[in-house]
Amino acid sequence: MAEKKLVEAITSMDEDFAQWYTDVVKKAELIDYTSVKGCMVIKPAGYAIWELLQRQLDDRFKATGVQNVYLPMFIPESLLEKEKDHVEGFAPEVAWVTHGGLQPLQERLCVRPTSETLFCDFYKNDVQSYRDLPKVYNQWCSVVRWEKETRPFLRSREFLWQEGHTVHATAEEAEERTIQMLNVYADFCEEVLAIPVIKGRKTDKEKFAGAVATYTIESLMHDGKALQSGTSHNFGDGFAKAFGIQFTNKDNTLKYVHQTSWGMTTRMIGAIIMVHGDNSGLVLPPKVAPIQIAIIPIQQKKEGVLDKAYELKQRLEKNFRVKVDDTDKSPGFKFAEAEMRGFPLRLEIGPKDIEAGKCVLCRRDNGEKLEVALDKVEEKAAELLETIHHDMLERARAHRDEHTYVARNYEEFEKLFTEKTGFVKAMWCGEQTCEDAIKEKLSVTSRCMPFEQEQLTDTCICCGKPAKKMVYWGRAY
Amino acid sequence: MAEKKLVEAITSMDEDFAQWYTDVVKKAELIDYTSVKGCMVIKPAGYAIWELLQRQLDDRFKATGVQNVYLPMFIPESLLEKEKDHVEGFAPEVAWVTHGGLQPLQERLCVRPTSETLFCDFYKNDVQSYRDLPKVYNQWCSVVRWEKETRPFLRSREFLWQEGHTVHATAEEAEERTIQMLNVYADFCEEVLAIPVIKGRKTDKEKFAGAVATYTIESLMHDGKALQSGTSHNFGDGFAKAFGIQFTNKDNTLKYVHQTSWGMTTRMIGAIIMVHGDNSGLVLPPKVAPIQIAIIPIQQKKEGVLDKAYELKQRLEKNFRVKVDDTDKSPGFKFAEAEMRGFPLRLEIGPKDIEAGKCVLCRRDNGEKLEVALDKVEEKAAELLETIHHDMLERARAHRDEHTYVARNYEEFEKLFTEKTGFVKAMWCGEQTCEDAIKEKLSVTSRCMPFEQEQLTDTCICCGKPAKKMVYWGRAY
Repeated sequence: MAEKKLVEAITSMDEDFAQWYTDVVKKAELIDYTSVKGCMVIKPAGYAIWELLQRQLDDRFKATGVQNVYLPMFIPESLLEKEKDHVEGFAPEVAWVTHGGLQPLQERLCVRPTSETLFCDFYKNDVQSYRDLPKVYNQWCSVVRWEKETRPFLRSREFLWQEGHTVHATAEEAEERTIQMLNVYADFCEEVLAIPVIKGRKTDKEKFAGAVATYTIESLMHDGKALQSGTSHNFGDGFAKAFGIQFTNKDNTLKYVHQTSWGMTTRMIGAIIMVHGDNSGLVLPPKVAPIQIAIIPIQQKKEGVLDKAYELKQRLEKNFRVKVDDTDKSPGFKFAEAEMRGFPLRLEIGPKDIEAGKCVLCRRDNGEKLEVALDKVEEKAAELLETIHHDMLERARAHRDEHTYVARNYEEFEKLFTEKTGFVKAMWCGEQTCEDAIKEKLSVTSRCMPFEQEQLTDTCICCGKPAKKMVYWGRAY
Repeated sequence: MAEKKLVEAITSMDEDFAQWYTDVVKKAELIDYTSVKGCMVIKPAGYAIWELLQRQLDDRFKATGVQNVYLPMFIPESLLEKEKDHVEGFAPEVAWVTHGGLQPLQERLCVRPTSETLFCDFYKNDVQSYRDLPKVYNQWCSVVRWEKETRPFLRSREFLWQEGHTVHATAEEAEERTIQMLNVYADFCEEVLAIPVIKGRKTDKEKFAGAVATYTIESLMHDGKALQSGTSHNFGDGFAKAFGIQFTNKDNTLKYVHQTSWGMTTRMIGAIIMVHGDNSGLVLPPKVAPIQIAIIPIQQKKEGVLDKAYELKQRLEKNFRVKVDDTDKSPGFKFAEAEMRGFPLRLEIGPKDIEAGKCVLCRRDNGEKLEVALDKVEEKAAELLETIHHDMLERARAHRDEHTYVARNYEEFEKLFTEKTGFVKAMWCGEQTCEDAIKEKLSVTSRCMPFEQEQLTDTCICCGKPAKKMVYWGRAY
């Protein structure tokens, strides 16, 4: 029953992008809603994407010397309050535990919205000497932020993520690590998720509560809205001073450490859907596709067809994630289902193919079909999966570039955000008043000050004063 | 500084086992205490063991068809209350969230102590027809139980675990899955952790809140105390009736599903410590040792020594987890540190070894040293790691068997628990009154009714009535 609903038409993305998104997450069986308001169930098809993403990101972390740890999920209220900006940023959106068993607690505990304060409390004891530095720790866990409006993967009261937290002897080293991790995220997005990103720095208005500098990677969804896809923060010695994290330097003086943190979340599954998906459903980048090749037998009741399908599976699963759809549904139904679920390649094999010693490989991303000799199928599949990744990335990049505009003055800026959706590049004076005014009037936020700066004009598009930075603006998820 | 403390003597395990345990978890840097009472920080050396354990257990799950999912960490109070026995078992030890952000919640949420109720709430909608069955789902997450007394890994307010939750069309199939997963745990303990276990069924007194039957694997620690190391529960259709989880059968009738759940936790790191550890520190089973071979250069300042050490690392890390200790500490200090951390093999290489074309491999588990030709080192290391695993398992089995006693009557039973520590096998009538009396008098609990039953005597050692079952009794963590 559940299977049949899968291939009913989903809402067209051009008609109603939000409804299309909801249809895809439900019909590709990525999530389900729950009795716990604002929280979701991540179903096997969704969680398998997360596992692949997690393993590949974790491998990249470890290659840079990151070590994984696990800290408690609770933060005592007094600890959360130690850094002023931080508590102001997070206190309004945390969940409070007030009772343990049948007893009220002496002090409230919040469920971590992020763990800077806990890591500081830990590092305070763990770091004594310059010999203990740097510490480059990360944890994979879930965090809670009491959001009012929620959407699967994009914004939910509980979400899964990783949070890296590092301590360093010098400001330079902390800044280097902050940028290094931003680059890890950017490369990961392009090389694994086939999502191109803009790297840049957040304005002070948009930076993380307690950070000196927040760096971000921003991606553009199919509907022209921006998605903050990973952030990396340099805290300077602010948290160190609030928590008293000091070490004895080589010259025997006491010094404060410099710290960073960086995170990426399950919202990247939302990004995959909204960057690559189409009106037939999900389109998964090959490197995080739980099934890379779906083998669909044609006339499977004819002698030898299923045997050949299983034989191909056995051969292919040495290098790829493969399944055979041997259910009793029609091939057409199976095709539609494989499309909905976003499997990068479909392999069709029937009696005539077997006779001719070939099969058909069909690409999910562009529908292209290729006849392939059976003895060349591993080779061809490998090649095609590479090509699919490459083409998905380039298609997303082209879409983003086509939806990135330049505004030279406020009239152009307003017109663009009225008529178009996408990134708008424009010059800014650096004052928050202009940022506030733009947000107020157009519901648009500064996404980042990109590392690759251009001098579009000399003056701020908002106030006309001398421009300091080129900013990417957008409507964001 | 922190490094130097490592090799100070730890408390002898024969003198004070509890203090020895605490010393090892701290000095091998597995955990740290936190400002969050009853919760711990799992440090890199501890978390790396968990990652290896998790990956290998997860692979074994997946080989039996398990799929991973993620459900919310919160359970609304009304949901927790749906199954009577379950809520009675867990309500006294849950943490309650009463406020989200600045607002009080309409309904309290508990932080999951286990997720039967959430899975039931989910399956109620997810399962419609016999075609949807079975569902064999698992999640890796943390859970919270508000314990009064806590010990690192063994009992803490928050711990990491996996919890499998399955739904089946028939009682037989549910029972089969319950036993299958118990066997997965038992094999995993022996084949990966080198810990031998007793498989059996819990008495009704000791079974899980809401279960029809709880199966367990029990292991014996070095101090003769028992540790429940994994449990697998058959729920029958009790939860299904409480939550209304029904499906349309092939014959078009509505039926209740049958369910199971099963879990293993970070307490297994405690088991590794207490089964294999010795007075020099941790002894890690090779399959979960984050470092399997520690290369320690002798006279490392002499030309060619470090180069040779790095060359060996490069060769060995193709098949093993390896590190070179090239710090400026003395070799003796490095040896002691490698012992404290439990690395299965130490490779010593100095100028004389290089000249002679050999190195020394030293086993952590028994201190045995072997001279090995440099061109045979991969081969020999592989062989030794196999042998170490085998010997550790057999040593633990011999220790357990030597500390497993038989009591034929109450006098023997009492004498054994007064003079010895270990498992005592004795016959039982099946009545809870006898179990209660024994616990009351001797602080001893029934660990399990083993699958391998023996008829030791004809009567219950407590009441003298006809015996129904042989039970393993013990003092437990």
